[in-house]
Amino acid sequence: MRYQLFYWPSIQGRGEFVRLALEDAGAAYDDVARGKGGTDKMMAMMKGEAKPPFAPPFLKSGRLVIAQVANILFFLWPRLGLAPKDEGARLWLNALQLTVTDFVKEVHDTHHPVGTGLYYEDQKPEARRYASGFLDERAPKYLGYFERVIDESGGPYVLGRKVSYTDLSLFQLVEGMRYAFPKGMKRIEKKIPKVVAVRDRVAQRSGIKAYLVSDRRIAFNEDGIFRRYPELDK
Amino acid sequence: MRYQLFYWPSIQGRGEFVRLALEDAGAAYDDVARGKGGTDKMMAMMKGEAKPPFAPPFLKSGRLVIAQVANILFFLWPRLGLAPKDEGARLWLNALQLTVTDFVKEVHDTHHPVGTGLYYEDQKPEARRYASGFLDERAPKYLGYFERVIDESGGPYVLGRKVSYTDLSLFQLVEGMRYAFPKGMKRIEKKIPKVVAVRDRVAQRSGIKAYLVSDRRIAFNEDGIFRRYPELDK
Repeated sequence: MRYQLFYWPSIQGRGEFVRLALEDAGAAYDDVARGKGGTDKMMAMMKGEAKPPFAPPFLKSGRLVIAQVANILFFLWPRLGLAPKDEGARLWLNALQLTVTDFVKEVHDTHHPVGTGLYYEDQKPEARRYASGFLDERAPKYLGYFERVIDESGGPYVLGRKVSYTDLSLFQLVEGMRYAFPKGMKRIEKKIPKVVAVRDRVAQRSGIKAYLVSDRRIAFNEDGIFRRYPELDK
Repeated sequence: MRYQLFYWPSIQGRGEFVRLALEDAGAAYDDVARGKGGTDKMMAMMKGEAKPPFAPPFLKSGRLVIAQVANILFFLWPRLGLAPKDEGARLWLNALQLTVTDFVKEVHDTHHPVGTGLYYEDQKPEARRYASGFLDERAPKYLGYFERVIDESGGPYVLGRKVSYTDLSLFQLVEGMRYAFPKGMKRIEKKIPKVVAVRDRVAQRSGIKAYLVSDRRIAFNEDGIFRRYPELDK
């Protein structure tokens, strides 16, 4: 099965959580919008599908078109041969991934607290206020939660001994936080050694290692979810 | 099977999307935190579980504890005998429900754009700015998306002829928007007749009808997700 991933071509963004799963498993896929005319193809699908995605990313697998990151990963993981067998474990993993989703939205809102449709430049004071509470409370709360989950599982991963797509997402969260908030994240990391250890283990996985040095990995930049605006980092 | 729902006892909030599914199906459940000592019980579970929920709502079903609204509904629906059989339809429904989740977060942020930890009174100007873009762009975009989905399905529901939990959620979204933004929603409703028709159909379902006049239905109030702050409605 060759998958087609549809996501904005110039950012990691939400698509990256899917890319990491595909890359880790060595799955065959096209990152469609990065090819010639690909963004047009993506927009045409959003307009033309009878079951239209609300927004990218979405994944085409045969005749299925699947939207929403957590939903894509839920679908994909068993096919990549990596899902836990029992339903309880899959639901637990899905709850964890949806908590990642919630966190990612709050990361996004550090630079867009007042409106997605407005420029960052038009909401800088609000962004500073938002980012302050984010670094002091929200990010430590979310990342501290995952620290506890890894601790309760016996580690080293969120489900225990076997890696899961949420671990790949934790890698991305740590990388992104380090990029966007180097100062704030330095403080936070002191309290989440197990999350950082997941990041380190994931970085050493062969599929991820190869991906990170390839030109398929887009660099962090100020159009994505994690943006380095030094005025927001304290 | 008797379910135990855990959610804040004095608001509809995110728990309401689960309550509506349980009530529609006539499922046996306890709304635990509304009973004596129930909130303490809920907090103790969040602290004590080896697979802890990040936040309410969560559902206990036998030994499983399931968090995140869309995840709870995904689990619950087949057990209530109402889920579509094939995987593609279940994933499609899950994507729709996750879009409801995203919308609910933006509704919440109309009164808390700068920080969840701050009072509304401390972010009123920002809330006004946020709510303006919300009513002009975001709410019409989300609700217009569901209008299109119902249209494409052939209607009257999001999946076509058979009602689903996302239809129950659409009922709640329309009710909530009418409560919080009576003026803004009046304009929006003109463009989403099929969504409004779902609301009307759901309101007539026997389980929902009985629920709405029972004391199990908490009234909308200014501690919930949908809050009536006239200064945000234009």
